[in-house]
Amino acid sequence: MPYNIADPSREIDDLVVRQVQVFREKQDIDLRIGHRVQAIDRSAKAVSVVNVRGEAFTLGYDTLLIATGASPIILDRPGMDLPGVMVLKSLEHGRRIKEWLTTAKVKQAVLVGMGYIGLEMAEALRARGIELHMLKNNPNLLPWLHQDLSELVQKELDANEVRLHPGCDVKRVEKTDDGLEVICESFNIKAQLLLLAIGVKPNSELAAGAGLELGPRKEIAVDKRARTLDENIYSAGDCADAYHVVTGQKVWIPLALRANRAGYAVADNVTGRPVELPGVAGTAVFKCFDLEIARTGLTRHEAAQAGFDPVEIYITSRTRAHRHPGASEMRVAMVGDKKSGKLLGTQIVSREGAAHRINAPAVALHAGLTVEEFSRTDLAYAPPFSPVWDPMLTAANQLLKEMQS
Amino acid sequence: MPYNIADPSREIDDLVVRQVQVFREKQDIDLRIGHRVQAIDRSAKAVSVVNVRGEAFTLGYDTLLIATGASPIILDRPGMDLPGVMVLKSLEHGRRIKEWLTTAKVKQAVLVGMGYIGLEMAEALRARGIELHMLKNNPNLLPWLHQDLSELVQKELDANEVRLHPGCDVKRVEKTDDGLEVICESFNIKAQLLLLAIGVKPNSELAAGAGLELGPRKEIAVDKRARTLDENIYSAGDCADAYHVVTGQKVWIPLALRANRAGYAVADNVTGRPVELPGVAGTAVFKCFDLEIARTGLTRHEAAQAGFDPVEIYITSRTRAHRHPGASEMRVAMVGDKKSGKLLGTQIVSREGAAHRINAPAVALHAGLTVEEFSRTDLAYAPPFSPVWDPMLTAANQLLKEMQS
Repeated sequence: MPYNIADPSREIDDLVVRQVQVFREKQDIDLRIGHRVQAIDRSAKAVSVVNVRGEAFTLGYDTLLIATGASPIILDRPGMDLPGVMVLKSLEHGRRIKEWLTTAKVKQAVLVGMGYIGLEMAEALRARGIELHMLKNNPNLLPWLHQDLSELVQKELDANEVRLHPGCDVKRVEKTDDGLEVICESFNIKAQLLLLAIGVKPNSELAAGAGLELGPRKEIAVDKRARTLDENIYSAGDCADAYHVVTGQKVWIPLALRANRAGYAVADNVTGRPVELPGVAGTAVFKCFDLEIARTGLTRHEAAQAGFDPVEIYITSRTRAHRHPGASEMRVAMVGDKKSGKLLGTQIVSREGAAHRINAPAVALHAGLTVEEFSRTDLAYAPPFSPVWDPMLTAANQLLKEMQS
Repeated sequence: MPYNIADPSREIDDLVVRQVQVFREKQDIDLRIGHRVQAIDRSAKAVSVVNVRGEAFTLGYDTLLIATGASPIILDRPGMDLPGVMVLKSLEHGRRIKEWLTTAKVKQAVLVGMGYIGLEMAEALRARGIELHMLKNNPNLLPWLHQDLSELVQKELDANEVRLHPGCDVKRVEKTDDGLEVICESFNIKAQLLLLAIGVKPNSELAAGAGLELGPRKEIAVDKRARTLDENIYSAGDCADAYHVVTGQKVWIPLALRANRAGYAVADNVTGRPVELPGVAGTAVFKCFDLEIARTGLTRHEAAQAGFDPVEIYITSRTRAHRHPGASEMRVAMVGDKKSGKLLGTQIVSREGAAHRINAPAVALHAGLTVEEFSRTDLAYAPPFSPVWDPMLTAANQLLKEMQS
């Protein structure tokens, strides 16, 4: 949605792949929109439903899938119900933001939060010429990114005139004659839009009400077959958890590929083709203005918490060969485990070539390769695309040295 | 060098990373240029040398490294010694071609061969506005590429006005008043430059003369420590062979990363830190005008020859998310082994994003992953860079279905 919002000439409905009638007519699914499930009666194997017309009824099931997704977290401060205070998760949110940018003639905006969505929306709002302030409670801009990589992102935001205020708490929001005033500890900002992008929380109340197990982030706990502790109830999508391939432990990393995969896995399991879901490596990439920011696996901090003996290196390489036109710097942080020798995680920031490069260490994490094994892989070289030693190999070589010292 | 040759404003010496004096003064290496080794006396552990001044002498060694590289193959036809008939391997070749383009006012060129170098040089010569004919003996344009992918390359060459003549043998070359005439079976072409890019052969005569073992392509056979059958003689670079990670068999795939790695490995082994070289996966990428062409592992044909039971699929996916601006088609061929379930190889052709994507299956080949295991990896997704299911995963899913059917 951020990329659609950035472009006033595009319709938000461009993003819709499958319409309601496809589900109903082509796939013969009894799709009921405007219906809310109130409770699950596990012993009766039935759900109680209320629809938009206020009609209440129960529906029996053999198998139930809870795919309730996640919801954006709303800041617990006065004024969050004012017009112009918005979040971005559903298509409807996207539609509202896009309309508001025009109808409210948004010239100044405040963005709270600096996650993937926040940073993508920063680019979208600046693309529309909107003066932008980004606020964040935590003084550390991107705590899940190596400090030196995080600073590159900060510079990119500065260069694009995003006014950053890390370590700044929003006290309240007030309505003014011509919009909103965001009140912080030491300053106020006038704006026509306040966008909250401080993360999401799993929609697990229904599952919790039915006595299903939740994980530490209150996500719905599922086994490798995407099944809850009730063998007739599955859960998939942003509301459910997963196993991490590196730690083997439960994690909640709600991203699109996993949600998609889990949906397919549930369909297979329910229709009699038992499959186990693979673990996640936490692989992610996003664009922030002209930077590509990619990660897979564990950060040094996460590795230490999971009981590894992490060693981390940071290198600067090039995106293309020596003297090849268009080459620019590529920064890589890589983490390995001193005890087992295993690769644990990788992060990349560069102007080009980070997005797909991250998939090489991601595969290595799934295969459980050591840093040495990964450093010995035969990666592609041609001057327009890489140095002879791909930056992934340079980083692995450097990490190996550090781990052996 | 092709990229340098494409740009008249660049000096060819831009490509030189390390000068002779660095070897001599900074690294204290007794570097002798203008010296040719005539023979190796293994029992005396000495080489006989002759220098450019005609002085002959012998030099003893404890350990010898043969790093004689490879030489371009010259067509065995009359006229190959005429001025304007050239090859591209050394920096000196590059310098000669670049000078010749200017001094001979090259307007028409003929390129024989359609390997990586040939296709890169096609782009370079067209970038300089030169009318270009490409000739090839084999009627199959790129026999190592899936037929549908090969056709995409052909279309790209056509779109860039490269006149292709596959299945066309050069009979001889003649000198004319204003350049050359290339005589083929059914037509002649006038040109000021004939560039031979029909491949390289290993410079293994010296090794053969000393009784060292050669492989089937006449490359110098080495073990995993880059040692020949003589424990005091190593060989590395384009003259030496390697083990393929998929087949475990000897192969000769002279590419830069391997040559580089083998150099380091010899240094380690000679200086008392025994290391084994990893195998090669035959990973390669090159650019041909606006196409990226990448491969790793075995083709279907190579797989069958190596005793596998190959299954191959071919898919069309997209380089970016649904409706994301700038998205274009990505074609992928993927090969798996029906018996073991293992991934054997992958090929990609697209306008963007092939070069680094190939590294994910390359790592999978090193790890010996099955197609199913590879299909379960957590690859990066963001709309500007990939569909939710990366084309590598879509291909693996498709291949898995095909293998299970």
